[in-house]
Formats: sequence, C-alpha cells, structure tokens
Amino acid sequence: MIVTVTANPAYDVTYELPSLTPGDVHRVETVHQRPGGKGVNVAAVLTQLGEPVIATGLSSVAFAADLAALGVNESFVTALPHVRRTLAVVEPGRTTSLWEPGAAVPEGAGARLRAHVDTLLVGATCLVLSGSLPPGLPPTTYADLATRAVRRGVPVLVDTSGPALLAAAQVPGVVLMPNVDELAELSGGSADLVAASRRLVDSGVGAVIATRGAEGLVVTTIAGSWAAVPPEPVAGNPTGAGDAAAAAVARGLATGTPPEDLAADAVVVSAAAVASPVAGAVDEHLMRAWQGRVVVTPLVPITERA
Amino acid sequence: MIVTVTANPAYDVTYELPSLTPGDVHRVETVHQRPGGKGVNVAAVLTQLGEPVIATGLSSVAFAADLAALGVNESFVTALPHVRRTLAVVEPGRTTSLWEPGAAVPEGAGARLRAHVDTLLVGATCLVLSGSLPPGLPPTTYADLATRAVRRGVPVLVDTSGPALLAAAQVPGVVLMPNVDELAELSGGSADLVAASRRLVDSGVGAVIATRGAEGLVVTTIAGSWAAVPPEPVAGNPTGAGDAAAAAVARGLATGTPPEDLAADAVVVSAAAVASPVAGAVDEHLMRAWQGRVVVTPLVPITERA
Repeated sequence: MIVTVTANPAYDVTYELPSLTPGDVHRVETVHQRPGGKGVNVAAVLTQLGEPVIATGLSSVAFAADLAALGVNESFVTALPHVRRTLAVVEPGRTTSLWEPGAAVPEGAGARLRAHVDTLLVGATCLVLSGSLPPGLPPTTYADLATRAVRRGVPVLVDTSGPALLAAAQVPGVVLMPNVDELAELSGGSADLVAASRRLVDSGVGAVIATRGAEGLVVTTIAGSWAAVPPEPVAGNPTGAGDAAAAAVARGLATGTPPEDLAADAVVVSAAAVASPVAGAVDEHLMRAWQGRVVVTPLVPITERA
Repeated sequence: MIVTVTANPAYDVTYELPSLTPGDVHRVETVHQRPGGKGVNVAAVLTQLGEPVIATGLSSVAFAADLAALGVNESFVTALPHVRRTLAVVEPGRTTSLWEPGAAVPEGAGARLRAHVDTLLVGATCLVLSGSLPPGLPPTTYADLATRAVRRGVPVLVDTSGPALLAAAQVPGVVLMPNVDELAELSGGSADLVAASRRLVDSGVGAVIATRGAEGLVVTTIAGSWAAVPPEPVAGNPTGAGDAAAAAVARGLATGTPPEDLAADAVVVSAAAVASPVAGAVDEHLMRAWQGRVVVTPLVPITERA
C-alpha cells in the first residue's frame, strides 16, 4: 500500500467564462470543482493505475467525504475547519489563477497527523509527501515524517518546495522530485542539473528525479544518471503532469524498479496525464501507445566529462 | 415573527489583492466568507435590530449551520447539494465580481419549501421574499408563497426581479420593492416613478417602495406617495443597503407603521448599512444620529399635476 500525504489540500475550482474584464460583474456559466492538492492527485492516478493506495493529510470532513465519493481510498485527519480553494478562471486562450491561503492549522493537528501516518506506515510500500505546508505547520513537518518512514525501511518520495524541501533533503535516503528551479535552490544555484543531483546523492539523498516539463526528466542515484525523453510532444493540460510522474515513481519505488525503467515509466504516465483534460487522471490509450517508446540515456556529469 | 425566504442563497466571498492581472497566478492574502443572499441579509439586519425573525429558503446543511453560527435564527430546507458563491475580487479602487450559478434544485424541493413556509406562516407578522430563484424553480414560486401568505392575512414584501417579480406583482395586496429599472419593467416602461407606482397600486398591489440608491426612496400606497430623502451623503459600502431597507420595511409592515414613518425608517436603516463595511449589518451610531433627520415629502403624480 502506497501512502500519500497532502498537508495543504485544496479544492480545484474552474470557472469558464467568455472573457474576464477586471471591474465587471460576471455571471459564471460553468463551474467545476473537485478535491485536489498534489498528494490527492498522486493517489487518484495510482487508483486509476490499479495500485493499492491510501491518501492522508489534513482536511475538513467535507473534503474527505468528497474525495471518498471520487473513489479514492482516504484516511485524512479532518482537523481543518475548511479546505482552501485554488480557482482557475478560464477564458479561451487564457487562464487566471487565484489561490486561497490554507486554513490555519489548529493546535495539535500536526501531532495528530504524525501519529496517524505512523499507523499507516505499518505495511506501507512507499510514503509520498506532496505539496506545500499550511500556515501553522513547521517547515520540518515533511522531514519528520520522512525520518520516521526511513527508520522503518519504507521508501520516501518528497515533492515539495521552499523550506520544506530544504529540510526534507537533509533526511538520508529520501527520494526528491524537484523541478529545475527547486534543484538550483537545493544545490546553491548550480547550473548543471546532473552535477546538482549528484551532489545531493553524495550528501545522502537516495535519488533525485529532476523534472524538466515537456523535455522529460533526469533520474540520479548512486549508480548513475539517466535522462528519459518523450518520443514526441503531447498537446493537453500540463496541470497535474508532475503528480502523475510522482505516482509512477512511487509505484517504482514500492516495487524496486531499476532507475532506467522507473524514469521511462514516469515519462509515460506524465505524458498520459497531459493528454487527460483533468488533473489526477491519465489517458490510458496514450499510456499503452507509449510503452517502450521513451528513450532513456545514461548521462555523465559535466565535471566528470571535463 | 418576521419570516424571510431566500430561495437562491450564496456565500459572499471576498478576495483582497494588490492587483488582478488576467493570465497571472495570484496568491490571495485575505479571504472573507459569510453566508449571504438577500433574504439572509434582511434577517441578519433584523436580528441586529432586535426584531424576532426566522430565515428560511433552500440551502445546504453546511450553509444552514454557518448561518446559525452567525447568530441568525434559521430554519432552511436543506435540499441543496451545495450553495453557490458570489466572489468579489477587491483591489484598491476596483472590484471584479464572479457569480456562480445556483445548484440545480432537486425534484420536490419546491414543494418542500412551500410546505415549510406554510408552517412558518402560523403566527408570522410579515413574509419577505428576496432575491433570485435558482435553476429548477418556476418563476411563480414567490407569487405562490405570496398568495398563501395574503390569504392568511400576513403582509408580504417582495424584493426580486425579472419574471419572478412580474408574477409576484399579480398577487393582490403584496408590497413590492423594485429599483427604478425594475419599476420601469413592471409598468411597461413608464418614465415617471410615481405614476408607475400608482398604476401598480391601482392594479391591486398593496404598496410600492421604489428604491433610488443614494437619493432615498418613494413609497406609494392607496393613500398617496411620499419621497424620503437622506439628509446627507454616506460614504461606505452600498452592498446590502437595499436589504437593510427591506428589513426596515418588513418591520414597519409587521407593526402597521404609517407609510411616511416607514419610508423615513427605511432610509435611516439603509444609510446605516452603507456605513457598515459588511452586508447584513448596520452602523448603530449612524442609525441613532439620523433618527428624525430624514425629510419625507408627499408627492403628486405628474398626471394629476397636469
């Protein structure tokens, strides 16, 4: 069972409008709303892939019920008075985003989450720590959960940013999933992606999966680095593509998949998410069509090449 | 006990932003949310004025609970899966509004609302029918409720628009609260506010309170027409000022207040709502300061003057 943790979930709300004019009153014709947040999307993709998964984190009672209604196995700590919304106002050719701050976390909720994750770690095959932390939780929250999982021998995948990522990167054995900007921040501004990843691995990180958007990703472990590149561009909605890649990586970590195969699988599932109109879902047709078509190349860091 | 009916309530949500730029991602710093809708605002003002009131209508379970938490006596038919939001994105000097459509009303909810209002009409001193109708309720919904109240001798105040207002205007004895545009629509485009009001009263309407924003209002009954004018301009937030005026009118109807006094009171309470930063609340200091200062003038329709 893979366990995903979303400390700061959100309802993904979409308003469709012919046009957005600041200062005007708009009667919105179409509203979509679904429970989201990065770890929730990871769990939804794993559910679609047929992998046993349970989604946890902090939420409201209503959010947990809405998630269960989507068919995602959940066990959230329902300590929040409400769950924030991330609003996308979609016009033809333009999207305006308005992200609410998370509700302040009540005292003791962090400890409740830690205790709850401890119970879920029994028998867990991978722990996925996703997204931002809400106001009131310390930046070490994910690092603490990661430490507890590593001690039990459970693989840990971390996909967060800022101080929470910096803290998690100190935990020996964790697998990090930064984008290029986050990787630069982690490595003190290094321009070379492979060298930066290698430095993290040398410092004790278990593996780095550096995501490069439409160009694929680079996996680095103690054994080497591999670039996985999509065979062709995919049109669609890139929102949630990183979460789909994280789902594939978590599945690979849970089953001990070799880095090259894990890298290829993550690119396939990520592309299948781009081809799906909503976050937290993949296009199964594209997923089957791309099997075996992703090119994986071993890389040497610039410093060794010199 | 005054009964307010809000068939299509909404959460009033406010996002405060330094600036709104279409196409950008905005992290909203401050979010305000409160249960609203015109009849809910009327009930909130009456509660503040110390008048016995109960708010009903169609809502979700969560909305009813949120309203009760505000201290408003409520007995909503909780037939809706969720309650829509009306979002105001507020920058310095500019407000952009995004109004969600109401959730579709489940079958049978209209009949449940009618039966529930019937029980609340026992002992009611005034019935207030406020705001729009949600998708799925016929435009005669408020007219039907008004007819049932009139039969029981309960005064009825209607503050709606469009087809629901046109239908309600057919019910003998109802009191209407149109703005200038709605009055023109009701009277087939008549330019003179007093003549249009008088024509409605001649056709069977009990009274017309024509609201004119910052210029006050004109009350017309079978006994004549009176204009009530604020003694001075009020700075503040005009949202909800009409609902505060409706609260004052409902109180006047419940107690048999003469039209001139009712007109003056409605202007005072409306101005006190403008001076209050949030809808559904009044500034009690201004309310006391303005007592006796509103000028009420008897009017003669143009046709009689000629």
